[in-house]
Amino acid sequence: MNTQPSPNSLKIAYIGGGSREWAHKLMMDLALCPDLAGEVLLYDIDMDSARLNEELGNWIQGQPGMHSRWHYRAVSDLKITLADADFVVISIQPGSLELMASEIALAESHGLFYPVGDTTGAPGLSRGLRSVAIFKMFAEAINAYCPDAWITNYTNPMSICTRTLTRVAPRLKVFGCCHEVFATQRMLAGMAAQFLQIETPPRKDIQVNVLGINHFTWVNQARYQGRDLLAVLSDHLEEKGSLRFYTQKEVESWNDWFHSADLVKFTLFQRYRILAAAGDRHLVEFLPGFIVSPESLFKWGIIRTPVSYRISRWEAAPQKIRDWISGTSPFVPESSGEEGVGMIKALLGLGDIVTNVNLENTGQISNLPLQSVVETNAHFSRDSVRAVVAGALPRAIAAMINQHITNQELIIDAVLLNDLDLALQAFINDPSNHLPIDSSAALFQALVQLNRDFLPVPEMANNRVQNAYAEAK
Amino acid sequence: MNTQPSPNSLKIAYIGGGSREWAHKLMMDLALCPDLAGEVLLYDIDMDSARLNEELGNWIQGQPGMHSRWHYRAVSDLKITLADADFVVISIQPGSLELMASEIALAESHGLFYPVGDTTGAPGLSRGLRSVAIFKMFAEAINAYCPDAWITNYTNPMSICTRTLTRVAPRLKVFGCCHEVFATQRMLAGMAAQFLQIETPPRKDIQVNVLGINHFTWVNQARYQGRDLLAVLSDHLEEKGSLRFYTQKEVESWNDWFHSADLVKFTLFQRYRILAAAGDRHLVEFLPGFIVSPESLFKWGIIRTPVSYRISRWEAAPQKIRDWISGTSPFVPESSGEEGVGMIKALLGLGDIVTNVNLENTGQISNLPLQSVVETNAHFSRDSVRAVVAGALPRAIAAMINQHITNQELIIDAVLLNDLDLALQAFINDPSNHLPIDSSAALFQALVQLNRDFLPVPEMANNRVQNAYAEAK
Amino acid sequence: MNTQPSPNSLKIAYIGGGSREWAHKLMMDLALCPDLAGEVLLYDIDMDSARLNEELGNWIQGQPGMHSRWHYRAVSDLKITLADADFVVISIQPGSLELMASEIALAESHGLFYPVGDTTGAPGLSRGLRSVAIFKMFAEAINAYCPDAWITNYTNPMSICTRTLTRVAPRLKVFGCCHEVFATQRMLAGMAAQFLQIETPPRKDIQVNVLGINHFTWVNQARYQGRDLLAVLSDHLEEKGSLRFYTQKEVESWNDWFHSADLVKFTLFQRYRILAAAGDRHLVEFLPGFIVSPESLFKWGIIRTPVSYRISRWEAAPQKIRDWISGTSPFVPESSGEEGVGMIKALLGLGDIVTNVNLENTGQISNLPLQSVVETNAHFSRDSVRAVVAGALPRAIAAMINQHITNQELIIDAVLLNDLDLALQAFINDPSNHLPIDSSAALFQALVQLNRDFLPVPEMANNRVQNAYAEAK
Amino acid sequence: MNTQPSPNSLKIAYIGGGSREWAHKLMMDLALCPDLAGEVLLYDIDMDSARLNEELGNWIQGQPGMHSRWHYRAVSDLKITLADADFVVISIQPGSLELMASEIALAESHGLFYPVGDTTGAPGLSRGLRSVAIFKMFAEAINAYCPDAWITNYTNPMSICTRTLTRVAPRLKVFGCCHEVFATQRMLAGMAAQFLQIETPPRKDIQVNVLGINHFTWVNQARYQGRDLLAVLSDHLEEKGSLRFYTQKEVESWNDWFHSADLVKFTLFQRYRILAAAGDRHLVEFLPGFIVSPESLFKWGIIRTPVSYRISRWEAAPQKIRDWISGTSPFVPESSGEEGVGMIKALLGLGDIVTNVNLENTGQISNLPLQSVVETNAHFSRDSVRAVVAGALPRAIAAMINQHITNQELIIDAVLLNDLDLALQAFINDPSNHLPIDSSAALFQALVQLNRDFLPVPEMANNRVQNAYAEAK
Repeated sequence: MNTQPSPNSLKIAYIGGGSREWAHKLMMDLALCPDLAGEVLLYDIDMDSARLNEELGNWIQGQPGMHSRWHYRAVSDLKITLADADFVVISIQPGSLELMASEIALAESHGLFYPVGDTTGAPGLSRGLRSVAIFKMFAEAINAYCPDAWITNYTNPMSICTRTLTRVAPRLKVFGCCHEVFATQRMLAGMAAQFLQIETPPRKDIQVNVLGINHFTWVNQARYQGRDLLAVLSDHLEEKGSLRFYTQKEVESWNDWFHSADLVKFTLFQRYRILAAAGDRHLVEFLPGFIVSPESLFKWGIIRTPVSYRISRWEAAPQKIRDWISGTSPFVPESSGEEGVGMIKALLGLGDIVTNVNLENTGQISNLPLQSVVETNAHFSRDSVRAVVAGALPRAIAAMINQHITNQELIIDAVLLNDLDLALQAFINDPSNHLPIDSSAALFQALVQLNRDFLPVPEMANNRVQNAYAEAK
Repeated sequence: MNTQPSPNSLKIAYIGGGSREWAHKLMMDLALCPDLAGEVLLYDIDMDSARLNEELGNWIQGQPGMHSRWHYRAVSDLKITLADADFVVISIQPGSLELMASEIALAESHGLFYPVGDTTGAPGLSRGLRSVAIFKMFAEAINAYCPDAWITNYTNPMSICTRTLTRVAPRLKVFGCCHEVFATQRMLAGMAAQFLQIETPPRKDIQVNVLGINHFTWVNQARYQGRDLLAVLSDHLEEKGSLRFYTQKEVESWNDWFHSADLVKFTLFQRYRILAAAGDRHLVEFLPGFIVSPESLFKWGIIRTPVSYRISRWEAAPQKIRDWISGTSPFVPESSGEEGVGMIKALLGLGDIVTNVNLENTGQISNLPLQSVVETNAHFSRDSVRAVVAGALPRAIAAMINQHITNQELIIDAVLLNDLDLALQAFINDPSNHLPIDSSAALFQALVQLNRDFLPVPEMANNRVQNAYAEAK
Repeated sequence: MNTQPSPNSLKIAYIGGGSREWAHKLMMDLALCPDLAGEVLLYDIDMDSARLNEELGNWIQGQPGMHSRWHYRAVSDLKITLADADFVVISIQPGSLELMASEIALAESHGLFYPVGDTTGAPGLSRGLRSVAIFKMFAEAINAYCPDAWITNYTNPMSICTRTLTRVAPRLKVFGCCHEVFATQRMLAGMAAQFLQIETPPRKDIQVNVLGINHFTWVNQARYQGRDLLAVLSDHLEEKGSLRFYTQKEVESWNDWFHSADLVKFTLFQRYRILAAAGDRHLVEFLPGFIVSPESLFKWGIIRTPVSYRISRWEAAPQKIRDWISGTSPFVPESSGEEGVGMIKALLGLGDIVTNVNLENTGQISNLPLQSVVETNAHFSRDSVRAVVAGALPRAIAAMINQHITNQELIIDAVLLNDLDLALQAFINDPSNHLPIDSSAALFQALVQLNRDFLPVPEMANNRVQNAYAEAK
Repeated sequence: MNTQPSPNSLKIAYIGGGSREWAHKLMMDLALCPDLAGEVLLYDIDMDSARLNEELGNWIQGQPGMHSRWHYRAVSDLKITLADADFVVISIQPGSLELMASEIALAESHGLFYPVGDTTGAPGLSRGLRSVAIFKMFAEAINAYCPDAWITNYTNPMSICTRTLTRVAPRLKVFGCCHEVFATQRMLAGMAAQFLQIETPPRKDIQVNVLGINHFTWVNQARYQGRDLLAVLSDHLEEKGSLRFYTQKEVESWNDWFHSADLVKFTLFQRYRILAAAGDRHLVEFLPGFIVSPESLFKWGIIRTPVSYRISRWEAAPQKIRDWISGTSPFVPESSGEEGVGMIKALLGLGDIVTNVNLENTGQISNLPLQSVVETNAHFSRDSVRAVVAGALPRAIAAMINQHITNQELIIDAVLLNDLDLALQAFINDPSNHLPIDSSAALFQALVQLNRDFLPVPEMANNRVQNAYAEAK
């Protein structure tokens, strides 16, 4: 951002401006915030979506209860979008949802059943590969057109995308946001209500110390008004008599494709004495032993989110917007519960906040490698984001996370150094992947083919991977 | 050892003196060495075996071609064995072979098919647990009765046993010996002969830079007279046209239960660009994806060594000795090819050597944790063993090894800190273990029961492990 | 503190409760704070002073403009003072002011002219030695009687005293407070007013990133409303034409014994490109080349604070109190400008703050050793103090600070391990000490004699130190 | 070197081939070695000296007792010298002896009395600055013309010169050699003879563990046939009754300008419990408190080597050579006692050796920064030099060395990054420099002027240094 941007005439560059989830949340939160005004440029390779968001954003200004005046504009040129922006928001779909579906299906055909598929494991690492190529381009553009802007990334795989930006252009000011920890705070708030016989406290009042990597983040201290909520949880779990597994039928009856039964989370808590802060659907993708069959997932209460559901939701979104604008369905102004606008305000000097974000490790987690992107609390103040020291992870967890961080770096190196073999090493070493090396290599090769259009040197796809393993005897 | 032990009146304390493999090798090599003399005290909980070795050791002195004069004595008291010893050799079977068989069978009943089962994976970690308890006792005794002695450990699990000694008594002078790397040198010597059209060079002339942990050690530089043997290997593997998998029938026809087809080793070499220095039977126990079925092992040319074979070999050994002594079968004096006696000579100032051993990491591998036990070359000179700096491992390999080192430390902590939960964390995190947490915990619990007699606080076996995983919803 | 202390019935244990500076500041700030109430126990080896403070504290409650109700009580028993305290405040004079005067005079007689003498250099390290012995006793008592209390240390040498508490009792919750950085913020606020043509901003609005060790702390980022104040300072210094040294006469005419001319601070800024955040009187004690003569100090505008002035101020203090109570001189209620009460409120959950404190390094400064006590910003919230990551120091500064940290650890070790030789190593290595080893040892020996009553093993004072340096030729 | 150089037709490139000390030693040792033959190219900017060495080298071949056949050739072109060389030897005088004299005199005029002036302190760092510029050029040339050659550096400042080579061209194979440790081994051998009542053992039989940086290296283990020589030294020093200082008259009567009385060495040993392995003349240049006056040096028995002596020795050298060749003075073939030729043989596969050298830290000293050039033992074998792990330095010594390493890196950065301010930071931070910042800056500026012809951007000499220190009040 300019050294002294005026809160009344900000420029926000939105990469992925046709977004059908994060863009709407931002619009709503901006509209409800009386302190800021300016323009939001919506850049997208899908200009129809960007234009619809432009229409919605501008329409919202006129609705009752809205405080701010913002101008939205769809732009097809990245340079125009970024030029002198104060803030850049990135929330893209790296590749199509159909591609995502193919990746997950390919993994499934090799016996790997990922419930989400956007962060780690074979489909997540595959998505990571193309994301590095895409974010490299973003980093170069931001560095050229608005190097002083603050960049918020919402795109998954979070760690790989966020790290790519500063690997490519080290001076960029970047942080990555994810609401996964909020759900854990809500769970703890509910537990506090139940076991301390109080009203359910607001999420933000659950004080947590966060440490780990995105979607595999942990909480080693959780308190509400001085009460130790991890001790409460521990006592409660000790009391319960038996492991309560789920049946396939039960789980299939749930009607929320993003449901987490928390059985994995609680089991990990008992084994490692620290609370995982992401949903079970994410957790099992980082661990050995779970994604081996649909039955194994059902047993633990884990639903695999069908990409077809994501696609239909995505396809239905425009009509929902049009219905609001036409008055066919009522428009209810409501805060998103996200912290993005609060962060912008803090960066403008309008009130410090402390919340969890993804940043390069500059010391906040003492037993993970420096410079890897980690998730902890951070202090936001005027033009400044500084991590709060979170301390050290338990040894057993640190070793697992270190393996995942190594894999992320290998994926980034594979693209930036044009050496796909490094990506295959990440696939083989992935803890959720129980395939022998030859099967991993075959799956890898198929995934690389799928991503051929995104990889900088298409020939890489053929490079060495199909070489046979020979016997020298 | 005493500050200035005389090579002519050494005292060697042999813990596991009834050993039917390493003890005989040592006897032979001592007998062939004209520079040393003294006495060897053979301590064992199996006194019959120790007494037979006493008989054999003393008998060998009188055979033709034997140079040295050593006195062997079986001793049932550890204090007498150790008092003022110059050298301590430890080669024990931690627990019976029957117990080892049960461990491997238990793992198999849970779907984990370990070919060796003495180093890592469920049976190796289980063996590790009891070994910590046993080696703690050895460390305390050595520290009390001969704190200046040099200690050579041959017992598996090598890293856990060796590290336990200095965890318990930091000033002890310990190194661990394993001949696994020698086989890789021999393989390279054979390859040099074939592809460089030369006579097969002696193993010791294959210059290797060794780095890793025991049975998962690597070679990133191998040369014969200046020729880069890893480049030769690489060229050769590139030439070959196809991956040559094995059938069950083929493998079963091999008549060597310790055979390595090197297919895993070569595949790893192609993927990670560094040569694993242990046999395939060991390698697959450190990796995900292999031990899932006997078929999967056969395909890669891996035989599972039957413990029954170990038992029958063990049972047959005494008769072999008696046949030598009685003259029924001819006794052929022959060097063992091991380096133990060469090390003793170097430590006495009779000629420096450089060879690979297991030592605490004091800097020799820069990207593994300090103090973990690692395997590299070391320089042996008078009363001194110092590692040679081996450098850094490739990132992907370092992350895997770091996971194994963490697991080893958790196993040691579990016993030394009386906290068996830490051992369960190691089981869950073991890369070869593809079981979900509940199955890992069940297998763990069964293995702990098996080891009940060895664990310092038997109640530990019931502690928390069978607690249910509860659901707090 | 108790897990949930009530802000209306707090117990504060004040060690050094007869304090004539910090105690009065705390009393006033507590009296002006409407949110807290409770009792303050004043422990001191000088019970007269403690009783006078008791009288003053209780008297203040009745004065106009005072909000809170606190009860003050002088106590001669440390156990009673500490039992179940919620907060412990430590501000003692370690040894008498006369002892301090002797230390500084002794150093002077060896050619070392320290302006302050309470932090580092020969007198500061000497004071450190006895402080370790004293704080060891405090740590043990707090650990026994109120292990959950939050401890604020104000005593110098700050780093040594603070670190001793957690070296002795690792679970104690400790931070150290110093207002030295505030003066730098005020200087920057004044500079902002002058060069940006604005009203002088309040100190707290000068946003600084603090990193270093107490009295040798640095600021690598300073902003007011987005304006980079270090750039303003740099421009201004470039403009000025010549180095403006001071004459002895000029400096002697200054009537403030604590004056800092900032000439050293600005020179360091030009050389190292980072702003020292302590006054020049402190800075020169950490650096080579300054304390060699009074002339050298005068030239740089540095006054040596006479201990005689401290003594007379100290002696005059009781009458000042009596004059207030008797009405002889008017009592003006006024906030101290310190942050102690704000910290207490934050720890009780009454409003987060971020301010600079001294804490063990858990990652906040990435190129100083973990666990050393460093000064950075920290986030205070309910029952939680967590450092904000400050990043890395410039290499040249980090090396100097690392030398001082090593010396501090050697001083602590010397007392805790009963090995005074280690303290002599610290004396020799002190950067401000330009004496050769023999002179350093003689000065050291004399200082140890002075401190004989405080050192745990009085014989230490004779141990080896006076041993001659021999020549073996 | 070529992968498989033939010991019978080696090419050695000698940079500084006109050398009047190291070149003669090498010639002699090569001539006495029957195993090697080839050609030595002598490159020098002083071609007369190179040609005289050419004549001498070739003449030596014909003398009685000489084994080898080597051809010497003076070459004025660096490219021709280096092309395809197997070994490169660098022993240059960076700048003239007159320049060295001026540096030392300048420092003296500021009150800094350096006895040697070629390693550290103001003159050593100044020499370092120009050496970086010169060695940068060597590194680029070697990298272009013989990147596989092994490079031996003998030039001081050793650490700065050696590190510059790999900073500029990381793949170069470099080690630095210095005989300073040998003198300590000889001292220990003499002590062993005296106190153990034995014949003086050969230097090489004194087994030492070396760790530190060149000319400030330490020995924490020294043994002869198992006897602990540091314990012998310690006992002996305890016995002696009084510190034996020297008078100016005594010292001036010594007729060896390189004499070391070892009084500093032994005093350090008593204070830090570890033996410094360089002569006192070097040691005092690394320490505070010594170089403040000639009297202070005399007292400790330290002679300042007059550069005029070096110059006259240098000027007399050619006549000595001509006298040999003409037969005027007898030529006595004698080994130099250096290890250079032994190292070459080891690198050719003709016999491993372990000796002390200067190498980048890849782990050999665990508490000094990785990649700094440190001195430890190393194992030389065919085409391989690997450091032997030396362990950790005592904390107090490590902190001092870390300061010197930081200064060395700042000197290198100053030239490679064209930022002379960094070099001034090194000057100010130098522990031997007791000047205040303004005097340090003035001396620095004068030294930079002296070196103007060597620094890559002459304008640097004016850059900022003479800027005044301003006062912003």
